[in-house]
Amino acid sequence: MSPRPNRPLPLATPAGIEVLTKILTQGPIPRVEIARRTGLSQAAVTKAVAPLIEAGFVTDQPVAADPDAHIESQLGIGRPVSPLTVVADSVSVIGLKVTPTDLIGVTTDFTAGIRAVRHCRLPDTAAETVTAKLIELARQLIEEIEDPASLAGPLVGIGVAVSGDVDAVHGVVRDSPFMGWRDVPLAASLTDSLDVPVVVTNDVRALTVAEHWFGVGVNADSFAVVTIGSGVGCGLYINGEVVSGAHGVSGELGHLPLAPGELVCTCGRRGCVETVASSDAILARARETTGKPTLDLSGAIELAHAGNDDAREAFDRAGEVIGSALAAMVNLVGPELVVIAGEGVADYDLYEQRMREAFAAHAFGAAGDCRLMLRSHTFDDWARGAAATVIRSYVRGEPPLRR
Amino acid sequence: MSPRPNRPLPLATPAGIEVLTKILTQGPIPRVEIARRTGLSQAAVTKAVAPLIEAGFVTDQPVAADPDAHIESQLGIGRPVSPLTVVADSVSVIGLKVTPTDLIGVTTDFTAGIRAVRHCRLPDTAAETVTAKLIELARQLIEEIEDPASLAGPLVGIGVAVSGDVDAVHGVVRDSPFMGWRDVPLAASLTDSLDVPVVVTNDVRALTVAEHWFGVGVNADSFAVVTIGSGVGCGLYINGEVVSGAHGVSGELGHLPLAPGELVCTCGRRGCVETVASSDAILARARETTGKPTLDLSGAIELAHAGNDDAREAFDRAGEVIGSALAAMVNLVGPELVVIAGEGVADYDLYEQRMREAFAAHAFGAAGDCRLMLRSHTFDDWARGAAATVIRSYVRGEPPLRR
Repeated sequence: MSPRPNRPLPLATPAGIEVLTKILTQGPIPRVEIARRTGLSQAAVTKAVAPLIEAGFVTDQPVAADPDAHIESQLGIGRPVSPLTVVADSVSVIGLKVTPTDLIGVTTDFTAGIRAVRHCRLPDTAAETVTAKLIELARQLIEEIEDPASLAGPLVGIGVAVSGDVDAVHGVVRDSPFMGWRDVPLAASLTDSLDVPVVVTNDVRALTVAEHWFGVGVNADSFAVVTIGSGVGCGLYINGEVVSGAHGVSGELGHLPLAPGELVCTCGRRGCVETVASSDAILARARETTGKPTLDLSGAIELAHAGNDDAREAFDRAGEVIGSALAAMVNLVGPELVVIAGEGVADYDLYEQRMREAFAAHAFGAAGDCRLMLRSHTFDDWARGAAATVIRSYVRGEPPLRR
Repeated sequence: MSPRPNRPLPLATPAGIEVLTKILTQGPIPRVEIARRTGLSQAAVTKAVAPLIEAGFVTDQPVAADPDAHIESQLGIGRPVSPLTVVADSVSVIGLKVTPTDLIGVTTDFTAGIRAVRHCRLPDTAAETVTAKLIELARQLIEEIEDPASLAGPLVGIGVAVSGDVDAVHGVVRDSPFMGWRDVPLAASLTDSLDVPVVVTNDVRALTVAEHWFGVGVNADSFAVVTIGSGVGCGLYINGEVVSGAHGVSGELGHLPLAPGELVCTCGRRGCVETVASSDAILARARETTGKPTLDLSGAIELAHAGNDDAREAFDRAGEVIGSALAAMVNLVGPELVVIAGEGVADYDLYEQRMREAFAAHAFGAAGDCRLMLRSHTFDDWARGAAATVIRSYVRGEPPLRR
């Protein structure tokens, strides 16, 4: 038997889920506005909200920390507006991000606000090592949540974000080239040890869920999150939902065959975007062009910033392929907004110009009118994405792990 | 003022639209099954269906032409099942497809079944010429519909399918390289002359709507329609809806930069898929490799079928780029099913092997598990796609043309 959340939500109907989602992602929001945005009757909204207030997940009292809610309540003429807000501390969620060298863990509240952060070095990337370290890190975060001095709500779930092909339904990492993993049943291992619902998800998709529910995507009809760093990834939000792929794979922007065919990718395929645009590929190229085989990435960045043409060439080449990949993506799905994020964004200036030129050269017609937005980004954000995915599953009442 | 449909549907609520859509696309279907598939209560389904039956759009009587409905009604124990079907002849729709040399017009019934077909040669591709010819062709089809001897229902709208960047909201063809058009306000011209609601749409997207509502897509959670012929296009159905693109552009598979950069596309960009995979590109290459400058496409196909290696090379090259483009698309959106259609499919055998090899080489992980399905296809299907788009707008009560 898979564990159930500690604190189940009183949501019996699709309308209830829709209403809570609106409060969570767009609150503070008055009942009448929820009715307008969902197409539900005001009576239906009121009926859905009542048990949520009763159980302490939602409040119609002004929230001290929210100046807008305060202003709005002063503006009310006649009957007060009483906008609805989620009670952030009603539940806690843990998000974990796996990288080849470190684990990053965060505890968040119900609105994906980060309350605690813990990092942990990994001695190696073996699935058993990493699983044990994940359990250890989760236990530390759970202990903090359960500390009576803490104001945190009860833990309702743990999310784990891993790069690669992840079967979220069964909680199995099918193929993660960065970790060197194949078919690792991560959710089952964690659930057995921790007795908490566990969601395992592709890291870029987790970030996209976070942007959709709690970030720049809240008001966008469609958007893409493109991550640039040790890999190149892409999350897509289209037609009201994050795209998950019929077989669990989507957004593999780093594996579009847009680079020269003679380059072999870490995934084994030829000509993938990552063969020139991943940070490893940029470094390898910079070592080659500068003739400095011991250069490290920060050294390459420094040289390029100092105007060294040989070092710049590696970034130019990456920018060109990233720009082509962005164009390919917008030509296919035509998002309203493209958010560029990831570790690589810190040095965005080094490849921005070539990237924009290649994008402009290949974006088709009005597809190129999408907004490109830069978003600075830390490793904690990846972990927060995993937490956001848990919050979404929790609100939607999605079944725990299927084995 | 834009014209309203001749015969408005009695649909006041989103639930009503959902119920009619299920009957239209999945009928014959019992009320209980509609309730199950939509999540509506049986009472809500019954309430939504009553005015549709009353007004003659839907029937619960067995339809003679449908053997399944007959069997199902015999199987009923106790209360009869009375599956619901749309009354095909309750309305008529006209679909028109524009090509550089011909117009194709069809009249369909409410279920997109083709009832009449008319083709018309174009003397040139000037927007004024084509608009006048479209109006002439539509008038002929309208006359047939209005003939008292005809059993056709009243005309509720006209759809026009054009390749390129089409602003469907305003009914303007923004950029159609094949037609040499820029900013042609086709819907306004046709509406003014014919006084019927007119929908103008990208042709591949129209085909995707037809597959979604009346074709292979009815039971797929996600699918792509890839068309191969004078151009290479792609329609996507993801997360419950056909992808339209925030700025009206999506599915431009023919303009992914996957071909050699020295080749210039008809759209002016470099390295587009169409520079090697369109039928014109295949022909140009075959003329070059065979040294026969007067070869035509059927001659090139004949030579390739006869085993001429020079002619085959042109098809191999096209197959390779099409396969890479398919892989790029599935890596990004991960559809369950890919339908390959279009004029070029008749000679699919000539490039199938290279296409499959390139697809297998570049599809990432489980994304490559999607089904690839071949669908033979005539020009009438494009026109039927335009009609399906009108049926969808009509059922959804979408506002007529915004100017």
